[in-house]
Amino acid sequence: MKQTRRLFIREGLAGAILLGTGNLVVADDVSETVKAKVTRVVNPFHLGMAGFTFSRFDIDITLKTMQRLDLHYLSVKDFHLPLNSTDKQIEDFKDKCASYNVIGYIVGPINMHSEAEVDEAFEYAKRVGVKKIIGVPDVELLPYVDKRVKEYDFNYAIHLHGPDKNVYKDAASVWKFTKDLDPRIGMCLDVGHDFRNGCDPSLDLQKYHTRVFDMHIKDETEASRMGVCTIIGRGLINFPALIRTMRKVNYTGMCSLEYEADKKDPFLGIAESIGYFKALCDTPS
Amino acid sequence: MKQTRRLFIREGLAGAILLGTGNLVVADDVSETVKAKVTRVVNPFHLGMAGFTFSRFDIDITLKTMQRLDLHYLSVKDFHLPLNSTDKQIEDFKDKCASYNVIGYIVGPINMHSEAEVDEAFEYAKRVGVKKIIGVPDVELLPYVDKRVKEYDFNYAIHLHGPDKNVYKDAASVWKFTKDLDPRIGMCLDVGHDFRNGCDPSLDLQKYHTRVFDMHIKDETEASRMGVCTIIGRGLINFPALIRTMRKVNYTGMCSLEYEADKKDPFLGIAESIGYFKALCDTPS
Repeated sequence: MKQTRRLFIREGLAGAILLGTGNLVVADDVSETVKAKVTRVVNPFHLGMAGFTFSRFDIDITLKTMQRLDLHYLSVKDFHLPLNSTDKQIEDFKDKCASYNVIGYIVGPINMHSEAEVDEAFEYAKRVGVKKIIGVPDVELLPYVDKRVKEYDFNYAIHLHGPDKNVYKDAASVWKFTKDLDPRIGMCLDVGHDFRNGCDPSLDLQKYHTRVFDMHIKDETEASRMGVCTIIGRGLINFPALIRTMRKVNYTGMCSLEYEADKKDPFLGIAESIGYFKALCDTPS
Repeated sequence: MKQTRRLFIREGLAGAILLGTGNLVVADDVSETVKAKVTRVVNPFHLGMAGFTFSRFDIDITLKTMQRLDLHYLSVKDFHLPLNSTDKQIEDFKDKCASYNVIGYIVGPINMHSEAEVDEAFEYAKRVGVKKIIGVPDVELLPYVDKRVKEYDFNYAIHLHGPDKNVYKDAASVWKFTKDLDPRIGMCLDVGHDFRNGCDPSLDLQKYHTRVFDMHIKDETEASRMGVCTIIGRGLINFPALIRTMRKVNYTGMCSLEYEADKKDPFLGIAESIGYFKALCDTPS
């Protein structure tokens, strides 16, 4: 009887995590066994962290926080690893990340105002060992970026910035500038800035997903220039719809939290955002 | 044209939060308006905080954290407000809570080993101004508790403790002890301890909901005595099923986070747990 019950419990939970070999204590007066099966959706995309979230904190605090949040993919920002780092400094940085079970999967956002800055960014990415760059290039540099993308075989994701900027305000804008360039040039879909520019990030992902190479997630208080970043789940962005679309278009990239509120003490907001987003990722659309 | 669009956006979001009177800036080159409607489920239950989560922290840190997490209901523990507090101290405590937009909705858990301790607890609850007590009474005191419940017209929720204790291990056990007593005596369904005793909290809520007056939420690593508290969403408890059941039985009480991990620095785990649970609460079952 007890053996049967034990086996049943183990099987009931096997969908998510295999229980160990025993030590399952079941009180004799327990009339119900654990029938609930906790199953979590496996998604094509992964959850990551944008380095910019930690603009006021060093890489050690960044990595310690990521470790506690069980996050493993970092978008590397220059204030944590400058573009002019030596190869030794880059190796040390990567070793430190590895010690927290974190890898840098992309670099940026990096502003590029000259061909020399484009060159520097591509060499930097190569030395860091990633094949993706988030960039904000002057528009007239796009043909030059196109050349470098072909040469390096990198993905180049233009970061869209919302209504505060003159170009690259939203996904449609980046699409317009890049659709006739090499297909490896596209966008980092920042859902917050897209939304602040009056767009629906979910619809934009649906339309432009072939050119979405990275995503920044955050919530916003308004679909306008007046909107400010807030904790995921407290704003107006429809995250269930976004996740449904990511699944539908089979988005295989990263969703990196770029939390821009509470700059001096963002930790509670970061963790609540990650928890909220994880729950939506874990459940079926 | 612009007017129409503005109106459309406002209506599109009206389900969740009414936008203000304007300042909605839509860039001229935006081809898509915000069609996504963020709707959040309205639940019969509310999310709260168990004071025990902050056993190493004072009431100020507790309330500041609750404020940042947008939580407003506190289960008051004696280490924040001792049972022998003066009326003045109780008033000051409540004023402080109010300044953070928090109210104490219940007191406890309080161990009760004598009739005098039962009396003290009931008087304390009355002075605090709540009509619910979480208690852990010696079994032989139950008839006395029953008498006091009738006299005060309070709900008395026995906190279940899992396999580490001799009595009140799980919901079935509390049910067994209380089913023939006054219907105002029942349980605080601690989903973690219930699960650690090999039970399914969701099934137990379904079975015993008429006697569930409060709930403690947390996740657990194993359905056994070996299980330890973990961040909600990382353990084995099926929270989507639990929330489905809370809606089904129309549970109108509180779900208070009783986070027992990382005692010295629980804040990230608390926030991630709250975010995870909120997301499940916001979405349909």
